Amino acid sequence: MNTKGAPHSGSMAVLTALQARLGAHKVLRDGAHLESYAWDNTGLYARPDGVVLASTLHDVQTTLALCHAHRVAVTPRTAGTGNVGGALAVEGGIVLSLQRMNRILEINPADRLVVVEPGVVNADLQDQLSAHGLFWPPNPSSSKSCAIGGNLAMCAAGPNAVRYGVVRDWVLGLELVTAEGKVMRTGSRCSKSVTGYDMTRLLVGSEGTLGVITQAILKLTPKPAVQLTMRVVYASVTAAAQAVSAIMAAGVPPSALEFMDSSCLGLLRQAGMAIPAQGAALLLLEVADEVTRVEGEVARLQEILQRYAPLELVVARQAAQAKAVWAARYALSPLLKNLAPKRVNEDVAVPVSRLPELIEGLQRIAERVDLPIVNFGHAGNGNIHVNLLVDPEDSVVMARLPDALDRVFDLVVKLDGTLSGEHGIGYQKRDYLGWELDAENLAMQRRLKALFDPNGILNPGKLFSPKPRATLV
Amino acid sequence: MNTKGAPHSGSMAVLTALQARLGAHKVLRDGAHLESYAWDNTGLYARPDGVVLASTLHDVQTTLALCHAHRVAVTPRTAGTGNVGGALAVEGGIVLSLQRMNRILEINPADRLVVVEPGVVNADLQDQLSAHGLFWPPNPSSSKSCAIGGNLAMCAAGPNAVRYGVVRDWVLGLELVTAEGKVMRTGSRCSKSVTGYDMTRLLVGSEGTLGVITQAILKLTPKPAVQLTMRVVYASVTAAAQAVSAIMAAGVPPSALEFMDSSCLGLLRQAGMAIPAQGAALLLLEVADEVTRVEGEVARLQEILQRYAPLELVVARQAAQAKAVWAARYALSPLLKNLAPKRVNEDVAVPVSRLPELIEGLQRIAERVDLPIVNFGHAGNGNIHVNLLVDPEDSVVMARLPDALDRVFDLVVKLDGTLSGEHGIGYQKRDYLGWELDAENLAMQRRLKALFDPNGILNPGKLFSPKPRATLV
Repeated sequence: MNTKGAPHSGSMAVLTALQARLGAHKVLRDGAHLESYAWDNTGLYARPDGVVLASTLHDVQTTLALCHAHRVAVTPRTAGTGNVGGALAVEGGIVLSLQRMNRILEINPADRLVVVEPGVVNADLQDQLSAHGLFWPPNPSSSKSCAIGGNLAMCAAGPNAVRYGVVRDWVLGLELVTAEGKVMRTGSRCSKSVTGYDMTRLLVGSEGTLGVITQAILKLTPKPAVQLTMRVVYASVTAAAQAVSAIMAAGVPPSALEFMDSSCLGLLRQAGMAIPAQGAALLLLEVADEVTRVEGEVARLQEILQRYAPLELVVARQAAQAKAVWAARYALSPLLKNLAPKRVNEDVAVPVSRLPELIEGLQRIAERVDLPIVNFGHAGNGNIHVNLLVDPEDSVVMARLPDALDRVFDLVVKLDGTLSGEHGIGYQKRDYLGWELDAENLAMQRRLKALFDPNGILNPGKLFSPKPRATLV
Repeated sequence: MNTKGAPHSGSMAVLTALQARLGAHKVLRDGAHLESYAWDNTGLYARPDGVVLASTLHDVQTTLALCHAHRVAVTPRTAGTGNVGGALAVEGGIVLSLQRMNRILEINPADRLVVVEPGVVNADLQDQLSAHGLFWPPNPSSSKSCAIGGNLAMCAAGPNAVRYGVVRDWVLGLELVTAEGKVMRTGSRCSKSVTGYDMTRLLVGSEGTLGVITQAILKLTPKPAVQLTMRVVYASVTAAAQAVSAIMAAGVPPSALEFMDSSCLGLLRQAGMAIPAQGAALLLLEVADEVTRVEGEVARLQEILQRYAPLELVVARQAAQAKAVWAARYALSPLLKNLAPKRVNEDVAVPVSRLPELIEGLQRIAERVDLPIVNFGHAGNGNIHVNLLVDPEDSVVMARLPDALDRVFDLVVKLDGTLSGEHGIGYQKRDYLGWELDAENLAMQRRLKALFDPNGILNPGKLFSPKPRATLV
């Protein structure tokens, strides 16, 4: 990583040209300003040589054309809330900020679509849509600060995914600037289109490595009228996982189906919350439906949940009560900080039926490598946030981390799982890409990258690793 | 098109080698056998030089490796029920039939997935799944004969798409043989995965031009317990379209929301069905839900449908009654044959709000070019089957067809529509691809094709045209 801050001479030439073409106010070059673009949610640090504050399509085109010609690295960035270093200029060069391109260009309830620029904040979009009784389902826990551009680049998700799917399921079309600075439009305003290759979904989740998204047509859906919350505690992970499988096999899934392991429950007890003593796994459900249907839906889910002998089952019907139930979920991240200064958060996923093996395997790894591992996440998709707790100042503990991560990803791949359910690969997991993808797929992905970005300027250092990790035996 | 049946010398060498390697029983070379692979649902004719009846992954690899080395065209094919010539060997060479690869390898209710080979017939899969209370939503009207391989290649859909989406929304992963004969696996058994580029959805809908799918992991969902059918007749297309928009803007869509125009209603009246005299548009709804919920859902939809002053609104609660309502939809195709020997069926789509403009525009084109045009289809997605009725023996009528099609696609593109909602581009619409896609997108699609298939052997003559049509002014 470029942590020394020594600017590349190519960057300097491009930044000077951009100041002349876009205006000095759109180009940041001094250290103090650059610092705020050197961080994201990983705690990694990579200061860029300069930052372009694009506010128009033309700004993006000009920046990319110049960087392409001078072979200068460009890291596209919106809110910088990612968890894998995707928005960090790990190989130096220029950060292309799209935060100022934050207009909602069209809300079209009749066609259930919205046209947005990448800098629009997820929650701001939802606020605008709720006036029309509509919403855009992807809801990362960072929704109050994360932007649509980052959501698209990483194919983000959140609790709603269990019912509604992920970002790729809610995008109709894109406007993209290619590495060479040309404009490409993909997809359609239609809810069904099979004209040519599905370029839209190739670009969603491509982590800024194939082009820069400057506009998106997002698909919307009606917002359910009411939401109730249920909290269920089981004596074992197996019982909880069986309940999750049974719920997913019957009817429309709840709009959230979250899981916490016994370590999480321990933390919550320490924080003074009343959790049954024998409890080893907790499920949190959100039931969203029409007024006339929601109680029937709660009853249906209760019947399934009861089959696996819960120690406790609470239905929160009042907003204040629901808020208290969700508070447990949102309290976890700060509580983890009490245990260790840093948590390494890996968002692996496995098929739902493998959840008990995953949680048991993670507990064994925690003992073997002597690092606390705390697990919670989106159970309905088998998507678990695996939190390895470390102190970055403690070199003995930090030395255990690579081995611990190797063991976690080895376990996940052996359980037919995936390295990432929603955070992406970015810089953090690039060394492991070949553990999940077969050689032919990985080779084709590298060729695709070269096709879209022949000079290798778009978000270099992400997805693909110069030094892949050998697999465990 | 290769209609003369003169075999290419390259094909002959490859077929001889394949007889030796795979066994003579897997290779068809004589005319009588080849005839049955020379047709599809378009009525076009293109006899291949030979047919390989693959039954294993190895057969597919061997065929492709040889064809790649000898630069012989390969047209992958399952049931041959497509509507755009996708399974026809329009440039000669070999048809690679995957119909014998028809095993359901795994049904996994706990993880809501099934693993299938491409030759499995859609309806056969549904039959197997219904025993587990699950289904795979894509349901083309050809479901009793079409196969999963073709469904994947074309990103098929059907009436269910209005609620559940299309094939790309219901595929988790693929096994593919590349043009060179190598095996590539994409996607995951997880319901959420963002590891690397979305190769799965790039391949779905790629019409056999990027590789040959030999296995698929399909996502399943619980099958609703009951289905009721509603038939609604309006005095204008505008009223029907407004009802469609209102339904799509409120709550979970019905599992089908079909449309028929006034020409369809005229045909049905001629066939003796009782349709109100003032009726100019008919909607057919299917409401699928749990037993305890379905009547509430019907009442909710009735309330919306009544707002636009229907001439008739029938709810079919008995199976026999529902069958009678659907019979009108299924009677249309044979009735069209009474009007003209051939129908050219284009499955365009527009945003739902543009449906009245589309139907009115199509009526104007029918008058202008003096060809009957009859329209029906999946209204909830704005996806209309535009049927131009012609007599192939009548050269005066046939001469009007190219101009008529130009006008139809020009209208669709001007309404922000798409050339195909579910049938694909294939051979039939390749000349129009550039009318919808911008130059940069089209150029990138051509480069993608060359990347996956450097020798141009995979389903040549499809998607991309050597002679694109000039756009109308």
